[in-house]
Amino acid sequence: MPSGKILVAQGGGPTAVINQSLVGVVLESRRFQHVTRVYGALHGVRGIVNEEFVDLTQETSHNLELVAATPSSALGSTRDKPDIAYCQQIFEVLRAHEIEHFFYIGGNDSSDTVRIVSEEAHKAGYPLRCIHIPKTIDNDLVGSDHTPGFPSAARFVAQAFAGANLDNAALPGVYVGVVMGRHAGFLTAASALGKKFPDDGPHLIYLPERVFVLDKFLADVKATYEKYGRCVIAVSEGIHDASGEPIASLLAKQVGSEVERDAHGNVQLSGTGALADLLCDEIKAKLGIKRVRGDTFGYLQRSFIGCVSDVDQREAREVGEKAVQFAMWGDRDGSVAIKRTGFYSVDYELLPLTEVAGKTRTMEDEFISASGTDVTDAFRLYLRPLLGSGMPDAFRLRAAKVAKVLKP
Amino acid sequence: MPSGKILVAQGGGPTAVINQSLVGVVLESRRFQHVTRVYGALHGVRGIVNEEFVDLTQETSHNLELVAATPSSALGSTRDKPDIAYCQQIFEVLRAHEIEHFFYIGGNDSSDTVRIVSEEAHKAGYPLRCIHIPKTIDNDLVGSDHTPGFPSAARFVAQAFAGANLDNAALPGVYVGVVMGRHAGFLTAASALGKKFPDDGPHLIYLPERVFVLDKFLADVKATYEKYGRCVIAVSEGIHDASGEPIASLLAKQVGSEVERDAHGNVQLSGTGALADLLCDEIKAKLGIKRVRGDTFGYLQRSFIGCVSDVDQREAREVGEKAVQFAMWGDRDGSVAIKRTGFYSVDYELLPLTEVAGKTRTMEDEFISASGTDVTDAFRLYLRPLLGSGMPDAFRLRAAKVAKVLKP
Repeated sequence: MPSGKILVAQGGGPTAVINQSLVGVVLESRRFQHVTRVYGALHGVRGIVNEEFVDLTQETSHNLELVAATPSSALGSTRDKPDIAYCQQIFEVLRAHEIEHFFYIGGNDSSDTVRIVSEEAHKAGYPLRCIHIPKTIDNDLVGSDHTPGFPSAARFVAQAFAGANLDNAALPGVYVGVVMGRHAGFLTAASALGKKFPDDGPHLIYLPERVFVLDKFLADVKATYEKYGRCVIAVSEGIHDASGEPIASLLAKQVGSEVERDAHGNVQLSGTGALADLLCDEIKAKLGIKRVRGDTFGYLQRSFIGCVSDVDQREAREVGEKAVQFAMWGDRDGSVAIKRTGFYSVDYELLPLTEVAGKTRTMEDEFISASGTDVTDAFRLYLRPLLGSGMPDAFRLRAAKVAKVLKP
Repeated sequence: MPSGKILVAQGGGPTAVINQSLVGVVLESRRFQHVTRVYGALHGVRGIVNEEFVDLTQETSHNLELVAATPSSALGSTRDKPDIAYCQQIFEVLRAHEIEHFFYIGGNDSSDTVRIVSEEAHKAGYPLRCIHIPKTIDNDLVGSDHTPGFPSAARFVAQAFAGANLDNAALPGVYVGVVMGRHAGFLTAASALGKKFPDDGPHLIYLPERVFVLDKFLADVKATYEKYGRCVIAVSEGIHDASGEPIASLLAKQVGSEVERDAHGNVQLSGTGALADLLCDEIKAKLGIKRVRGDTFGYLQRSFIGCVSDVDQREAREVGEKAVQFAMWGDRDGSVAIKRTGFYSVDYELLPLTEVAGKTRTMEDEFISASGTDVTDAFRLYLRPLLGSGMPDAFRLRAAKVAKVLKP
C-alpha cells in the first residue's frame, strides 16, 4: 500500500522567491487525497542524509503564505555537491522513510543530484518519482526561457544601477559595480535595464561570455569619461582572460596577494570586494582619474528583502505547483522548465533530467552587442517583462539655463 | 524695487529624498506673488561661483513631482567645502544676480557655508535671506530629532540586514556588512531594525561611538558563532581604535598596503571593500571559521532606487516648504530643524545657523546597549516610525520535527 509521503528540499544559493516554490509544492500536494505527509528536509541534501525532516503537513496555510513571501530558503540550504555514494545515501534514507515523491528545488548541481537519485531508485526497482524544480539567480539552466529567482535579482541589479547612475551624475566620477555570475552574464546584463536616457549609465558592461582585456577596458573607460565626464561600469564577478583565468586572481597576483579557493579549486568571487577594488586601483593608476568608487553587490542582490518581481513570485509558485501536477498526473521523472508563450505569458513543461543536469547556459550571442560592452534590444525585450510591475522610474529637470551676469 | 529672485542648491552626498526638499522650495515659492524667479544652481556652491543656474520657474509642476520622487540630487552636487574667500565669491554672484533668498540643502558643511554667506551679506548691508535645509543619511546634524534622507537609508540598511540574516540562516557562516557613517553610528545601528526573532542577526553591531578593539571583536564573533552556529555583524565604516585611527587604515598597514586619503587627510571609507575584506581575513585567520563573507553596502544604501520611507518623503518635502515659509514670513536666517511632537508626528522650527553649522551629532548613550554591540529599545522606538509604512517582513516555518528511522 502506498505511503503517500512526499519530500521537498531546497539546495544551493537562496533566492527572493525560492519559498514560493516550496509553498507551491506543499499547498498543491494537499489537493491530492492520497498524500498523507509532506516532509521538508532541513539544509537540502545534507538534511536528507542526516534524516533531518520537518512535517509541513502540520503547517497552517496562513503561515505558509507568509513564508512564501519571505526571501531565502526557509528549510535551509547546503553547498554539498553529492557524488554517487552521497546520492546512494540519499536514496537509502528516502526508501527508509517510504518517500514516494522527491522534489528538489535548486540549480544545475541540484538537477544532477535528482538525476542520480532517480537512477538509483530505478536500479533498485523502488517506485520513486523525482522532480527537479528550477531556481537560480544566474539564469544558467538550459531548456528554460528563464529561471525563478533570476527576475527578482535582475530587478535588484537594475534598480541598483538606476540609483548608482543618479548618484554618479550628481557627483561625477567613475563607478564600478560588481555583480554575481561566474559563467553566465545575465544578471550583470540586467544592469542595462536601469538605464533610461542615452547618456545614463551603465555606460560599459563586462560579461563572462567575452574575454576581458585590461588595456581594452581602460581604453573604454577613458573614452567614456572623456565623452560624459563620468563613467558607470557593470562588471561580472566572473570576468576572465583568454585562458579562462579570473581577472580577480590575475589582479591579485600583481599586487602580491592571494585569492581564496573552494574545495573544487574555484576562486571565491562573492563575499569579497577585491575585484572592484583592484579594478578601481587600475583606473586611478593608469588613467589618473581621481574620484573612482567601487561597490560589490555581494549578497544584497540575492537576499535583499523588499525588492521582488511579482512575475517572478507568480512563476516560482507555479513551478512548485506544476512539479506536483507532473508528478501526480505524469509517468516520468524530470525537470520543470519555463517556456515563453507570448509577450508576456508562460507555460511549463517537464524536461528529461539528462537535458538539464549539470549543464550551464550562458548568454546567447544575440543578447550581447557587437562592442561586447552592452546588451542588445533583443535582451531588453527578453528581460523587461520579467522585472514585473511597479518598477521605480527616474526623472530629470528640464529647466532653461539662466544667462550669466558676471562672466557672460 | 525687490527682484523677487530665489536661488536653491543641493550640496554633499545625495539622498533618496533630497529632491523632495528641492521641489518643496520650488512649489511653495510659487505661492508667493512677489516671487518672479526660482533659480537652481547646478552642482551646489560650485555652480553658484560659476554662475551655472537653471530657471526652475519654467518647469511644469508635473515634472517637478516626478523629479521629487527620483533619488539623488537633480541639480547635481559638489564636495567643495567653501572657505571664507569662496563664500565671498558666492555672495558676489548672488548680489550680481539680485538673489534675495538663498536656500541650500545639505549637511553640516553646507550649513556652515550658509552661515558665512549670511554673515557676508549682513556685513555688506545686502538684504539676503539665507536658509539651510537639512539633509544627510548620517543623521548627524545637531538640533534636529533626525535629518531627511536618514530614514530612507536606514530602511535600506534594515531591509538589507533582514535579507542577509535570512541568507546566512540558510547557509550558515559569518557575514560582515559594512555601513556608511564616519563619526555617527545611526545608520549602522539601523541594522537592528532588520531583526525579528531573538536568534536573528545582526548579532553584533560596531559603532564609531565606541572604541573598536580587534581582540574583543574576535572574542564576540567566536562566542556568537558558538552559540548560534552563525554570526551576522554590522560594522560602521568609521570604527576606530582608542587613538581615533580608523580600523580600515590600521588593518591595511598590517598587510603592507595603503588606504586612500582625501585633501583633508581623511581616510577614504566608502567606495572600497577593504574594511570588510580585512575583517573577514582576521576572522578566518584567527578563528578558523571557513565560510566568512563580507559585503560593503557602499553607494547602494544612499542611492538605491525603490527603497524609500514615505515618512521621509513627506518630511523632506515639508522642510523645503517650511524653509520658504520661514524665509517669507520670518525675519531671520537659520537652519530648518525637525522636532518630534508625538508618536509619531513632527513640527519644524528655524534654528540659528550658529547652533547647527559645522557641528556633528553622534549617537546618544541611551541608544547604545551596555555591551556596546547592540542598540537599546529606546533606539528601536526612536527609529521605527521613521522607516515608514509597508516594511517587508520575514516569517519562518514552525513545522514539527519528524522522527528518524535509520539513526533514531
